[in-house]
Amino acid sequence: MKTMILHDFLPSGNGYKIRLLLRFLGQEFSLVEHDITRGETRTEDYLKNINPVGRIPALDVGDGHVLAESNAILLFLAEGTKWLPADKWARAAVYQWLFFEQYEHEPNVAVLRAWMSVKGTPDYGKPLIPMKREAAYNALSIMEDRLKDHDWLVGDDCTIADIALYAYTHVADEGGLDMVRFPAIGRWLARFAQHPAYVPISWKPV
Amino acid sequence: MKTMILHDFLPSGNGYKIRLLLRFLGQEFSLVEHDITRGETRTEDYLKNINPVGRIPALDVGDGHVLAESNAILLFLAEGTKWLPADKWARAAVYQWLFFEQYEHEPNVAVLRAWMSVKGTPDYGKPLIPMKREAAYNALSIMEDRLKDHDWLVGDDCTIADIALYAYTHVADEGGLDMVRFPAIGRWLARFAQHPAYVPISWKPV
Ligand SMILES: N[C@@H](CCC(=O)N[C@@H](CS)C(=O)NCC(=O)O)C(=O)O
Ligand SMILES: N[C@@H](CCC(=O)N[C@@H](CS)C(=O)NCC(=O)O)C(=O)O
Repeated sequence: MKTMILHDFLPSGNGYKIRLLLRFLGQEFSLVEHDITRGETRTEDYLKNINPVGRIPALDVGDGHVLAESNAILLFLAEGTKWLPADKWARAAVYQWLFFEQYEHEPNVAVLRAWMSVKGTPDYGKPLIPMKREAAYNALSIMEDRLKDHDWLVGDDCTIADIALYAYTHVADEGGLDMVRFPAIGRWLARFAQHPAYVPISWKPV
Repeated sequence: MKTMILHDFLPSGNGYKIRLLLRFLGQEFSLVEHDITRGETRTEDYLKNINPVGRIPALDVGDGHVLAESNAILLFLAEGTKWLPADKWARAAVYQWLFFEQYEHEPNVAVLRAWMSVKGTPDYGKPLIPMKREAAYNALSIMEDRLKDHDWLVGDDCTIADIALYAYTHVADEGGLDMVRFPAIGRWLARFAQHPAYVPISWKPV
């Protein structure tokens, strides 16, 4: 099997999800960086050969298959491992958290962070900040409720649901959110980072 | 097995996805309508007993399990059927379209329609319309590219990827989008509606 190639941008939480899971699975990969702040995912070549949507992450798994959408890549890689349970109710709960992440969490928590700490707030974004902040707190409250009396988002073990939500929650403060309000999330973040193969978001394979 | 109960709002494409798949599977269900324009999914009771996220659709499958997130419900219901292929590459492609739908398509195509034809454009939305329109056309172009030389989004048969994308694409014109630009999408919409159990978005079980 060819080494997998991850097309990525280091500050990206969506990319970090894949870096974490590949580490946890002990799967070697190489990283090709694309600076999204300079439009490097919007070139003709990138759109044609890597991802027509013009975004990272994209995982080239060899044999002509390039996968996009971070949570789809998580589902693909985790199949048959403990990171995606086989039980149908547990799977349904994982699916639910993955779509929650893309619809309720990422567009608020990650976008606020991108605006405040990665690329600056565009003019159209300024009036949206209060609304995004409220929606972000709402999404985080839903996580807090689950984590108050459970160690992990689904079942009794860490799954790709935790990976997907960890990615932007652990840097939510960079979007100006007050995370002290969410003590159960704080404990879960610490628990997550204890995995022996854990790496920080700025890590990359050599 | 108890009859399934779908918590829904008829104009919702996210709800329509579930109504379509339940019909295609020949699965009986009853519908409980909640008028989202009157905040009926934001009551204490709804948040506590149905979906803490405060949205439809939510599927009560009995045995105390209530599932939310339309595309998670599709994955749950379709498992083991031809609507979700077993082949790992085909599954990965289905996953990818489902997340594409929630991240690139729905927030633009469905939101424009909700603003123009369901609940009116809120003040914060007015300056966003040109950007959403551009993003909607971009998402539709990606579908068009695939459908130019394929009958369905994944493989050679209709899957939950087609159901998920059909829901809001078939009413995209209600969001002021010019669908004449996308002839392959037009043919795919017609092909989709030929399923013998097809029902329009306004249909509900008796
Ligand atoms: N739904 C996608 C979102 C990916 C995404 O938003 N990628 C951003 C970086 S985090 C990107 O590539 N932006 C550059 C661009 O759109 O030009 C996923 O989950 O992978
Ligand atoms: N990601 C969710 C989105 C569901 C959604 O946006 N539901 C809307 C109607 S289409 C809703 O319930 N809105 C009412 C509200 O949020 O109060 C899904 O795919 O099911």
